[in-house]
Amino acid sequence: MLARAGDPLGIRCRFLDPSPDAPAGRAAELVVGAYDDPAALDRFADGLTLVTYEFENVPVHSAQRLAERTRVLPPPRALEVAQDRLSEKRFLESADIPVPAWRPVASLADLRSAVAELGCPAVLKTRRLGYDGKGQHVIEGPADVELAWARLGQAPLVLETFVRFDRELSILAVRGREGSMISYPLVENLHAGGILRRSLAPAPRVPPALRARAEAYAHRVLDALGYMGVLTIELFQVGDRLLANEIAPRVHNSGHWTIEGTETSQFENHLRAVTGLPLGSTAARGASVMLNLIGTLPDTAAVLAIPGAHLHLYGKAPRPGRKLGHVTLRADDGAELDKLRARLEPLIPAGPPASL
Amino acid sequence: MLARAGDPLGIRCRFLDPSPDAPAGRAAELVVGAYDDPAALDRFADGLTLVTYEFENVPVHSAQRLAERTRVLPPPRALEVAQDRLSEKRFLESADIPVPAWRPVASLADLRSAVAELGCPAVLKTRRLGYDGKGQHVIEGPADVELAWARLGQAPLVLETFVRFDRELSILAVRGREGSMISYPLVENLHAGGILRRSLAPAPRVPPALRARAEAYAHRVLDALGYMGVLTIELFQVGDRLLANEIAPRVHNSGHWTIEGTETSQFENHLRAVTGLPLGSTAARGASVMLNLIGTLPDTAAVLAIPGAHLHLYGKAPRPGRKLGHVTLRADDGAELDKLRARLEPLIPAGPPASL
Repeated sequence: MLARAGDPLGIRCRFLDPSPDAPAGRAAELVVGAYDDPAALDRFADGLTLVTYEFENVPVHSAQRLAERTRVLPPPRALEVAQDRLSEKRFLESADIPVPAWRPVASLADLRSAVAELGCPAVLKTRRLGYDGKGQHVIEGPADVELAWARLGQAPLVLETFVRFDRELSILAVRGREGSMISYPLVENLHAGGILRRSLAPAPRVPPALRARAEAYAHRVLDALGYMGVLTIELFQVGDRLLANEIAPRVHNSGHWTIEGTETSQFENHLRAVTGLPLGSTAARGASVMLNLIGTLPDTAAVLAIPGAHLHLYGKAPRPGRKLGHVTLRADDGAELDKLRARLEPLIPAGPPASL
Repeated sequence: MLARAGDPLGIRCRFLDPSPDAPAGRAAELVVGAYDDPAALDRFADGLTLVTYEFENVPVHSAQRLAERTRVLPPPRALEVAQDRLSEKRFLESADIPVPAWRPVASLADLRSAVAELGCPAVLKTRRLGYDGKGQHVIEGPADVELAWARLGQAPLVLETFVRFDRELSILAVRGREGSMISYPLVENLHAGGILRRSLAPAPRVPPALRARAEAYAHRVLDALGYMGVLTIELFQVGDRLLANEIAPRVHNSGHWTIEGTETSQFENHLRAVTGLPLGSTAARGASVMLNLIGTLPDTAAVLAIPGAHLHLYGKAPRPGRKLGHVTLRADDGAELDKLRARLEPLIPAGPPASL
């Protein structure tokens, strides 16, 4: 989706991916290699003006190696912060952004005392490499501590209060080379089995003060990181408070609706930002809902028969829990969207939850 | 643009083009070969489910050869009609669609008597291979007859009345496999030096009766050809009358604004139609203007600094008179569009008119 956004602007892309079947290979040059293979990194970097990423688990030392040869944006520091939940939380707190109460956990004894301090339920998470609900275990009561430790105790961990949120939101913001910043409207997200299922955008019932707070948080994060490109913050809304759950230093699944639902997609704005072009309008066009296609695909003709439905198949082999594509449904207002959603949602296979 | 529209629907494209630099090669597989090279056609067709075209001068016998191996849509008959101005005019008249008065011209004597019958000014056109103003000569008075004949007389010709139109319009219509038809809003076009410079869409000041008339003409053409895909009719508006100037059996430059300016682009709807998928909404989103980039390119950053401006560079080597890309400017209404156009239009190099 980045390559497709770049081509009309004259931006030619090359991708590095461990898989020869990576969908990017259909839209641009593909270098197949591991993210930590120096030879692959060198082949990839050869002749490039600029490197960016759309996966936050790219090894920081790989990004640094590339940064010795060419410009890497967003700055590798953003990867460093986002890859470790401990540094992420410390960073957010240093930027005066509220987060759920948390404790670092390095031993079973740490875990017991953290559970005692934070209370239950709480969520034990690996500090690194967690995504789509992987590397997490909910502790409902002290009796769950042993099992949680047995499952995750081999890695560095954090324990977090389980937030009884009203809803999950995300904010996508962009910072350009000259420091200009712009945000997309807040998005309301629904996860199941740890995987994003649905994004509704703009999020309904957002008072101006809430939007302003989310934007202020995003801008503080962007500025503190000297960031360039699109960055996403996942948030929990509790009353009129927002707690930051996670930072993603990249274009984000909860921003896929921007392709049809805004004037300038997150993909185009990311490329504009890192290449130093002016940022594009982030204004929404009507109301949109994005539904992920997980594990199995719906009937193409049935989806396309719904006015305003836009199908995005990634061309990946189906397997349980895998994101195979998404559908964005756009309408001129929320009432019309609700009518069309009632036709679309029954067509989308719910799919089994991903194995944890 | 077709390949880019097809990929998210799971439609994989292969292109046949005489040039190894064809822009399609950046988005899909490219077979390089002449349109009339049987070996290239066979290599191209190998394994394809369906063949379509986006260039109306593909030789009819090539389309027929392909149709022996695989399905070719729109039907080759549409190429046959559109490639010869004589058969085109006869076809339009048989469908009861008004055209400018015309006469076939096969000799200087024919030309003299045609000029006498139709009066001046009149336009002498080659029957075949005319596009972007090539193969045309305006006859202002009887004194121009000799020169016009000297320039074009080696090919079969038609003479047409020079229509003093109020404006040029086009209608893009789509017919699906099951015969369903849908049209885009009428577009107002401006040509200079025979090349489309600007399309304004939806065309302003279109009374419902005018739109209905244009749609009726388009539907008669689609039905008469047993057509599938997008078809364009260029029209002259004279008062409340519409005269058909030309049929293009393909996606059309005057429909490029549909990428951002409608719910479903002409490219996606063409692919939906030929693959038997339901057609998508053709409703406009606000008001758009499309400006062609001819011969030289504007400053990318200056264009993108204008809200709602969408740049499409084709990646072709610049040369005078060549279409190198286009910009679509979209706004929520016509008044806002006018304001933004005043900023955009001075940035677009007018370029020298194409040599005829």
